[in-house]
Amino acid sequence: MERYDIAVIGTGPAGISAAITAKVRNKNIILLGSRELSSKIEKAHAVNNYPGLPNQGGEELKEAFLKHLDSLDISITEEKVNAVYALGEYFVIQGQNGDYEADSVILATGFSVVKPYPGENENLGRGVSYCATCDAAFYRGKTAAVIAFSQKEESEARFLSEIADKVLYFKMYKDDSEGVESSGGVSIQSMPEENIEIITGVKPLSIKKAENTMELETSGGNYTVDGVFILRDTVAPTQLVPGLKVVDNHVETGRDMSTNIKGLFACGDITGAPYQYVKSAGEGNVAALSAVAYLGQRGK
Amino acid sequence: MERYDIAVIGTGPAGISAAITAKVRNKNIILLGSRELSSKIEKAHAVNNYPGLPNQGGEELKEAFLKHLDSLDISITEEKVNAVYALGEYFVIQGQNGDYEADSVILATGFSVVKPYPGENENLGRGVSYCATCDAAFYRGKTAAVIAFSQKEESEARFLSEIADKVLYFKMYKDDSEGVESSGGVSIQSMPEENIEIITGVKPLSIKKAENTMELETSGGNYTVDGVFILRDTVAPTQLVPGLKVVDNHVETGRDMSTNIKGLFACGDITGAPYQYVKSAGEGNVAALSAVAYLGQRGK
Repeated sequence: MERYDIAVIGTGPAGISAAITAKVRNKNIILLGSRELSSKIEKAHAVNNYPGLPNQGGEELKEAFLKHLDSLDISITEEKVNAVYALGEYFVIQGQNGDYEADSVILATGFSVVKPYPGENENLGRGVSYCATCDAAFYRGKTAAVIAFSQKEESEARFLSEIADKVLYFKMYKDDSEGVESSGGVSIQSMPEENIEIITGVKPLSIKKAENTMELETSGGNYTVDGVFILRDTVAPTQLVPGLKVVDNHVETGRDMSTNIKGLFACGDITGAPYQYVKSAGEGNVAALSAVAYLGQRGK
Repeated sequence: MERYDIAVIGTGPAGISAAITAKVRNKNIILLGSRELSSKIEKAHAVNNYPGLPNQGGEELKEAFLKHLDSLDISITEEKVNAVYALGEYFVIQGQNGDYEADSVILATGFSVVKPYPGENENLGRGVSYCATCDAAFYRGKTAAVIAFSQKEESEARFLSEIADKVLYFKMYKDDSEGVESSGGVSIQSMPEENIEIITGVKPLSIKKAENTMELETSGGNYTVDGVFILRDTVAPTQLVPGLKVVDNHVETGRDMSTNIKGLFACGDITGAPYQYVKSAGEGNVAALSAVAYLGQRGK
């Protein structure tokens, strides 16, 4: 497997800035995220305080960032990262589509408060999973619940349904196309699989381990299943990186953006307020230079 | 005197960013510096890692920043600041051209190692001065030495020469126009005043207080004068702001860019490496938001 000098996780202003500086410093990098950059960038109406780019809409800023990446031949690897493991000498990054190795990691996945369900953390890896692609094989002939927070998880559920006997799909979002793709009273079903049952308007409350099954308690009653997949857009930092020090829901960093894990740096919203483009971009730059210095100490 | 909410001192990327964010937050600000922004911006050949503005020359970045300031009706008050005094409830900023008052101050004056001459700090205000405009009156009929680090100090020396009997002008820089404004063997003298003696190629070594005079020791011999003016582009942070906490030549700040002085924030190169545009711009943004929060706590 190719081992990168630096893996940058996240494509908001922090991750983009980190990737740009690392690349300018001639490091072999991989930038993991979305070609859409970040939902926050896209949704921004007008940003007026990013110096040098006055009065930008979200789309304009996105284009300016993408153009900058292109000018430096930095490509974005479309990937959702499920976990980062610090193995001492290097890191393994577990993505939805595969694993990656890097000597250092820059975490720029943004911030959103993820409150785990009661029983979620305790049963992670023992009936609770964040990745259908990774763990579907364990559910051959079984019943799995999927708690999904965005439409793109439907492909995960469909993949799971090819292996599992039954998929209970708890839909926690509104379709982008809600009310649009229905006509003449006929709603177009995006998941036509017969063994996927779509459940809406129901709130999961807790997850409990029974003898051989999992009990999913919801506002609409209890469900007995073999496993529960929780598919969120954001994974909490402590779940993403086991052992990472977090204070008040934010990754603790020094002025050089180092974390408590050697070789792992964090930048942007994940490190705390203010949640501002140029603050994030500045931290990305610092994180990249710190990663470069870290590699230098190790003779790279 | 008008009291500003926030005085931003310095017009590099940090000061510009701070001014932009403070203005967007509807604060009454004054931005003190130079319409040339900073010598570092101008002299930059190419900056490749300011996200969104790929491959910019110094001039281009300067234009982009100025355009942004103009778009928000932020003007630059051309001013060199000699001292900032924290008076508890507000600050007095002593400039070359006048004094200013503000409820909070953002220090973004950049970094350059200023090594004081032996005897300089000890005799500051007692024979050593940083501001000819401020202290010229004390030198009526007397002899003053001026140690000048840039051509723009010539106007200071000329002003001083109107009051003092004699000015010894130690020229520590090369003319921008060196070798250009001379023709036919006749050098055009920018300071035609007869009582200004220009001394070049001589290095000041130390300043000592004698009974009623000052002894300026140089590599070209000793000079006995009544006072010594040291006119540098940059004033060391501790001299600029009495009582400011400095560690390793840099202003110590928290993650919110606060200093040990309440209401005074610092950002950019003055806070430490890396010396990078986007790092400075990010810190300027944070400093401004912290100043806004500080004002808010005081009911402004």
